[in-house]
Amino acid sequence: MRIDVLTLFPDMFDGVFGSSILGKAREKGIVSLRTVNFRDYANNKHNTVDDYPFGGGGGMVLKPEPIFAAVEELTAGEDARPRVVLMCPQGEPFTQRKAEELSKESHLVFVCGHYEGYDERIREHLITDEISIGDYVLTGGELPAMVVIDSVVRLLPGVLGNEQSAVTDSFSTGLLEYPHYTRPATFRDWTVPDVLLSGHHEKIASWRREQSLLRTLERRPELLETADLTPKEREWLERRRACEEG
Amino acid sequence: MRIDVLTLFPDMFDGVFGSSILGKAREKGIVSLRTVNFRDYANNKHNTVDDYPFGGGGGMVLKPEPIFAAVEELTAGEDARPRVVLMCPQGEPFTQRKAEELSKESHLVFVCGHYEGYDERIREHLITDEISIGDYVLTGGELPAMVVIDSVVRLLPGVLGNEQSAVTDSFSTGLLEYPHYTRPATFRDWTVPDVLLSGHHEKIASWRREQSLLRTLERRPELLETADLTPKEREWLERRRACEEG
Repeated sequence: MRIDVLTLFPDMFDGVFGSSILGKAREKGIVSLRTVNFRDYANNKHNTVDDYPFGGGGGMVLKPEPIFAAVEELTAGEDARPRVVLMCPQGEPFTQRKAEELSKESHLVFVCGHYEGYDERIREHLITDEISIGDYVLTGGELPAMVVIDSVVRLLPGVLGNEQSAVTDSFSTGLLEYPHYTRPATFRDWTVPDVLLSGHHEKIASWRREQSLLRTLERRPELLETADLTPKEREWLERRRACEEG
Repeated sequence: MRIDVLTLFPDMFDGVFGSSILGKAREKGIVSLRTVNFRDYANNKHNTVDDYPFGGGGGMVLKPEPIFAAVEELTAGEDARPRVVLMCPQGEPFTQRKAEELSKESHLVFVCGHYEGYDERIREHLITDEISIGDYVLTGGELPAMVVIDSVVRLLPGVLGNEQSAVTDSFSTGLLEYPHYTRPATFRDWTVPDVLLSGHHEKIASWRREQSLLRTLERRPELLETADLTPKEREWLERRRACEEG
């Protein structure tokens, strides 16, 4: 997969693109990650990429020309039109399903603004996807792009080892994870639950499932509506809810 | 404000902590940002920070000792107990309100795991806040910590210039932003809406508000429930909805 990121702050990506899973995926040749400073595509003598908004008001707006020019050069000669993703608070909320969808593409282009707005014509005529990673205010689209890229690249075949994949699987149930414990069995005065030391696999599995259900009920009850539960589990949760309310 | 980040991948933070708003806030002395590799606190000869889970199963689990030792050294001698934030998918969903709350603290410690689980005793006895930035799977807590830190630091007094603050204000209405346009007035065949070139401030303001409402209705209707709307606007939206359905 090829990923290009348009940004005015390419240095921000150095640490993240060089370390950990993204760094390894790059070394293995599974993904090419590149940052492109779209200031290099400004077609005026001062290299300006933003300008005042028509109609007045505070804040600057990113001009269309440099971003169109950069994307068009990066995608020249490609048969299929690549996905051009704009990171912005107005975008569709990012989900694991979207990560899976994007991981099937061969070329992704991310466009990151930085406390400016975007000229609407960029949105209308160049962008294929607008994504928001959550309802909180950030300085720019760079961190959101890194988040989306991390979630997409880790899904590419060959990127994760078996050990790491295992952790993911527990997410795919739609429930929050059960508590984990490791050595020492007693740390300060705090001990590990007896069942985990019992060696009784069936009991351990059922304790973990129960903890997973309870934690989800307590912290994110809305996830239970779409989680993959047995009829017996749904009944058990209903009784629990009734007890708590009564 | 002082921010310490416990991580096994301190290099990941270099670019983000050095550039843009975070870099400037650091230079101005408004925030100190530090990464601490908690492997340095492993109390065993192989510097191991994780171990197999009690009860079996895939994946590794971060041991309690190194993380307790690191946090206790970082917070030694402080009167008030600092906030110790764990980045994890089981945490409370991150919001702008949470960013505002955290921005009032004097010392924040972030704990980032990396595809391992955490020993539950870390959660129970050391952590004050568990935060998730969204329902998608990432390689580790590092990117989420950067996201939270960016959103918190930009709220600190003196960090943002006026120009940048203005953009934020438009978010505080609870609606998505209206479309922005800048020069040229005609780019390729695409022109800027006439009203924005009219110089009629009242008409411009009302067009923008309407666009903001329409975009929110189209993309994120659930935000309208809590947005700050006039009774007249609510009526107008109701009529629009009725038309679309009828």
